Amino acid sequence: MSTVSTPFGVATLPYGVFSTASDQRARVGVAIDDLILDLAPAVQLLAPALAPAVAGPSLDTLLAAGPQTWSQVRALLTGWLADGTVSERLGPHLVPARDAVLHLPFTVADYVDFYASEQHATNLGKMFRPGQDPLTPNWKHLPIGYHGRAGTVVASGTDIVRPCGQRRGTDGDITFGPSQRLDIEAELGFVVGTPSPLGRPVDLAGFERHVFGVCLVNDWSARDIQAWEYVPLGPFLGKSFATSISPWVVPLAALGSARVPPPARTVPLLPYLDDSQAPPWGLDVRLEVRLNGHVVSRPRSDGMYWTGAQMLAHLTANGASLRTGDLYASGTISGERPGERGSLIELSWGGTEPLRLPDGTTRTFLDDGDEIVISASAPGADGVVIGLGEVRGRIRPAI
Amino acid sequence: MSTVSTPFGVATLPYGVFSTASDQRARVGVAIDDLILDLAPAVQLLAPALAPAVAGPSLDTLLAAGPQTWSQVRALLTGWLADGTVSERLGPHLVPARDAVLHLPFTVADYVDFYASEQHATNLGKMFRPGQDPLTPNWKHLPIGYHGRAGTVVASGTDIVRPCGQRRGTDGDITFGPSQRLDIEAELGFVVGTPSPLGRPVDLAGFERHVFGVCLVNDWSARDIQAWEYVPLGPFLGKSFATSISPWVVPLAALGSARVPPPARTVPLLPYLDDSQAPPWGLDVRLEVRLNGHVVSRPRSDGMYWTGAQMLAHLTANGASLRTGDLYASGTISGERPGERGSLIELSWGGTEPLRLPDGTTRTFLDDGDEIVISASAPGADGVVIGLGEVRGRIRPAI
Repeated sequence: MSTVSTPFGVATLPYGVFSTASDQRARVGVAIDDLILDLAPAVQLLAPALAPAVAGPSLDTLLAAGPQTWSQVRALLTGWLADGTVSERLGPHLVPARDAVLHLPFTVADYVDFYASEQHATNLGKMFRPGQDPLTPNWKHLPIGYHGRAGTVVASGTDIVRPCGQRRGTDGDITFGPSQRLDIEAELGFVVGTPSPLGRPVDLAGFERHVFGVCLVNDWSARDIQAWEYVPLGPFLGKSFATSISPWVVPLAALGSARVPPPARTVPLLPYLDDSQAPPWGLDVRLEVRLNGHVVSRPRSDGMYWTGAQMLAHLTANGASLRTGDLYASGTISGERPGERGSLIELSWGGTEPLRLPDGTTRTFLDDGDEIVISASAPGADGVVIGLGEVRGRIRPAI
Repeated sequence: MSTVSTPFGVATLPYGVFSTASDQRARVGVAIDDLILDLAPAVQLLAPALAPAVAGPSLDTLLAAGPQTWSQVRALLTGWLADGTVSERLGPHLVPARDAVLHLPFTVADYVDFYASEQHATNLGKMFRPGQDPLTPNWKHLPIGYHGRAGTVVASGTDIVRPCGQRRGTDGDITFGPSQRLDIEAELGFVVGTPSPLGRPVDLAGFERHVFGVCLVNDWSARDIQAWEYVPLGPFLGKSFATSISPWVVPLAALGSARVPPPARTVPLLPYLDDSQAPPWGLDVRLEVRLNGHVVSRPRSDGMYWTGAQMLAHLTANGASLRTGDLYASGTISGERPGERGSLIELSWGGTEPLRLPDGTTRTFLDDGDEIVISASAPGADGVVIGLGEVRGRIRPAI
């Protein structure tokens, strides 16, 4: 087996769910270079006591098994791949990735979307609430978030039907029809493994006990629907038609070298959010957004104001319980520079500055047939690259 | 068996999940007067072909079985109860309701809360956005809603721990601590049975195919947390600590005589929401809110601007799919008169007009130890009363 550093090299070892033409059962796999290890039979062969944790048609059981099991399984995999005699025995359980169909990796319990990038919130504030402070007064006191629709979180590769909805025209007329401002949001998602009981907040240090890993999220957004509906109770149909996630969940354990201090806080934080004394959970993930193959943005998450640990501490501060499979996402990741903005509404500045693509076409928002691929990687130890894979979706015309 | 008209008489036949000291398995039951019919063995005995639909530890299977099965099971029950010889054979499967523990009746998939009462939205608008139009410009064009936390929907009787959170004092200081403005919201919940695929809206006529029945909802709300957090993305931690639902789900089939025309629409509706030509799905449900046993409000749902059918058509207008177990609620039901307001923030007008209880105490918001019981009934045929049971919860001190 190759030990060359690829995005899915031995330092990454992400988990997903796959099937093949010859074995159509959905089952847990680990990506290794351009292969997928069929995890259940491999563990059954070499460490049968752990087999129940990786059995079944999704990651749900592994997620629920908790951090000790996560560490054990990862240590086993790392050991096996380093040991030539063992890795030879894994051969029969390796499948070429190109032969696999990848599925939604876990059952999404609740889905929460945050708004953690200051640059994104500032850009959106300028466009949605012109003439007011772009950041609302609460923005630097708490990670703003809202619940999204868990039932419409879909696997990467699922086509996205252009949503219809109500929007208000510039003439003030209210009409119903296909969204004319269909957008993307490039985000990082956090996947909860260990549940928590009702009434018991999870503190900053609890992040590593409760969160299994990260995935990529494209939070498709219909800006015209959203702009008309979202006051006073927040986004609803402008978001709920679909949210795509990447097939591979990268464990937190692979991201040790990607941890960076978050930006300096300009407003003092309440104790439950104050991470100044804690090891930081800022993450240096470098994303790339491609539209029909052309790179249109390269957002980086290292500038995100709120960390995943802070989002979780806030989400549970009121005693809300966690379930295995809860997914919470960062909100659009946007950097300081125009080429680092994670949504088209920012890249085209509300549609006023069309993007010119290398194929000669221009875009403000998405056309039918457009394909968006968001990919990402993070730094590992010793120059190794940790891959987060990609999340992909193509726009189909409204029905 | 008694055929006297009680709220859970033969015209109601609500479904729930119960267990007993002598048989601790959670199982499907039907309430009949002060008895519960253990449905699975009864159906196994008398109509075994339908037994799989009512087996298992929750209503999930029955909900998923669809409207034809719902009708068949209800017709069987009605027939059995009218037939003395059959109802005698049911005897061994009847349990006194007082001996049963009632559970969360179904697995909540996504939870959406609407804002369908004009009086409530007007009252809240006046208090949350003084000096502006109380109704936002979109309010009469679409049923405003947002997603809540499905994982913290709890069974009636579950104690509610007072949530902590951030709030902004009148001096502008931001502090963290137990909510000082803990409130209730008396609502009607709609329980989805039949799923729908992504990309396929459910029209107004689809309501009866997709919605199995209704329950009562207490959408506990921490007003101080909510007021500080909710701009711009809507309510989050002010709501997500707990939402209580009643144990008995009353099928739509029991509510035929409670259907009433909704209020006159003062703004023309887009076709997908226009119910002027359809049989109306306004509902005349009469609620009663008791605080420590004292009635503090009697809201009625017949004045609600948006119907359950309109809420569902809107929720899916963008192609969002439905799952079995989706729950959507009306939002607080408030009438024109002060004694018909469904939340304490309205009853005490933002805390400025304390309620005086018959026990000599006063309330603006909830004290630790307070118990709230919301009960309801609806008119049936020939003067019969259709009971919706009750949803109950007591406040425990913050941890």
